[in-house]
Amino acid sequence: MSRIAYVNGSYVPHADAGVHVEDRGYQFGDGVYEVCEVRGGHMVDERRHMERLVRSLGELRIRLPMSLAALGVVLRQTIARNRVRDGLIYLQVTRGVARRDHYFPDPATPPSIVVTARSVDPAKGEAVAGQGVALITVPDNRWERVDIKTIGLLPNVLAKEAAKQAGAREAWFVDASGHVTEGGSTNAWIVTREGALVTRPAESGILRGITRTVMIEVAEKLQLRVEERPFTVAEALNAREAFVTSATNFATPVVRIDGQVIGDGRPGPVARSLRENFHGVAEIAR
Amino acid sequence: MSRIAYVNGSYVPHADAGVHVEDRGYQFGDGVYEVCEVRGGHMVDERRHMERLVRSLGELRIRLPMSLAALGVVLRQTIARNRVRDGLIYLQVTRGVARRDHYFPDPATPPSIVVTARSVDPAKGEAVAGQGVALITVPDNRWERVDIKTIGLLPNVLAKEAAKQAGAREAWFVDASGHVTEGGSTNAWIVTREGALVTRPAESGILRGITRTVMIEVAEKLQLRVEERPFTVAEALNAREAFVTSATNFATPVVRIDGQVIGDGRPGPVARSLRENFHGVAEIAR
Repeated sequence: MSRIAYVNGSYVPHADAGVHVEDRGYQFGDGVYEVCEVRGGHMVDERRHMERLVRSLGELRIRLPMSLAALGVVLRQTIARNRVRDGLIYLQVTRGVARRDHYFPDPATPPSIVVTARSVDPAKGEAVAGQGVALITVPDNRWERVDIKTIGLLPNVLAKEAAKQAGAREAWFVDASGHVTEGGSTNAWIVTREGALVTRPAESGILRGITRTVMIEVAEKLQLRVEERPFTVAEALNAREAFVTSATNFATPVVRIDGQVIGDGRPGPVARSLRENFHGVAEIAR
Repeated sequence: MSRIAYVNGSYVPHADAGVHVEDRGYQFGDGVYEVCEVRGGHMVDERRHMERLVRSLGELRIRLPMSLAALGVVLRQTIARNRVRDGLIYLQVTRGVARRDHYFPDPATPPSIVVTARSVDPAKGEAVAGQGVALITVPDNRWERVDIKTIGLLPNVLAKEAAKQAGAREAWFVDASGHVTEGGSTNAWIVTREGALVTRPAESGILRGITRTVMIEVAEKLQLRVEERPFTVAEALNAREAFVTSATNFATPVVRIDGQVIGDGRPGPVARSLRENFHGVAEIAR
């Protein structure tokens, strides 16, 4: 079956899914995105992802291209037309097409919207989580507004590629004070020797991850103590466990940081337990 | 006459000029660009722009999609097919099309290239320069690698739009120490009360502007003293003159910063003189 994309009002074969070269997403990185897990054919935490999309657009003063209700229909249609049972849906909104000029275009310019979906074999993620992943740390060189989920992901691309080159899967950004901010495409967590879960507050310096938010709920349900505070690389290296969260990683254990083994070098029980209990707490609209 | 764009090997009507939704330029801001002035049908400082393009691509490990000689032909063809006598040519190269994943795609993935050209009435720029422009200052919130000319221009877009909302034309970014880095799409200069031209060194924190480099030569030819050092907003407010440079602005006088009048509030003689002498020093390959 060939893939279908939704592009500015039409469902088109993936191979033909194009946008104009003067789309401001292409020339300025002037847009935002969301990635949602699809599980059993249904979106996970759709409501929260849509809330965050609305916030990102609001911060950039880009209009939502259609009502949230209509967008929900498009998302469901895209999932259905691609026959995705388990996988992900990707949604991108930009400030639309206009002659290249930094200033915002005429407010009447319609924003652009692209939606794609694809299947992902859940066994692959399970295998990765079962082994645990390695990560590296890199200086956080990103712009200040990483709280907005923009498509300007080049620093993340470079950090994750550096991780791959080092035989790792993820990179953690570290701020000037030596504290971990977040991963290239995940939020960062540790479990201290005292058993507390530590993750950076989402007030500044990081994106407010949906999975991060839900994991805090999962942790509370499991009666684990959560401390929302920054942690250093040294703390992470001495932690009992480390893990990363995202819509497509759930909780994935980290077993090596900058080549140094974390805990006993195997996925820890807290990360495993959070991962197992995640979908019992996440919202899955059927 | 309708416009023509060059897109990945073909000359196509501008209206049909599209790229795939999974072009990494669109999903990650994973690409670079150049803008060159066209004057009398010829590119200004083509050699320097191509050198900078090669450097930007090298920093991101993106391949040049064709030889510089072939690219030169494409640039000339695009100018000719759009019958541009005076205007600009825009060139963008991205890491190509691949299934969305932060890591670099298979090295065999061809980079994408888009070239557009358009006419600009020189009288318009002259009128603007004749009046002088207002600008505002904003905190520099960009990533650390602004020395690479990437398409990740959202902070620049937001800064320039803020300028427009304030009735100004440009925004100067100011670093944490109170020094001006550069403008949203220009380099920043002042003329001190002692008559020295001051512009920030291009070692870090700014893009090495081609026009900035050429203007230093122009200044030397005019026997003006140039100091490459950072300057503060306070110094700019007390300067005899201020101006901005770029491939499409040459030297454009600044007459107001954050609402405060610079010098006598009219374009100054140094900026005017640099502007008038620019094309005598710039390389125009005929």
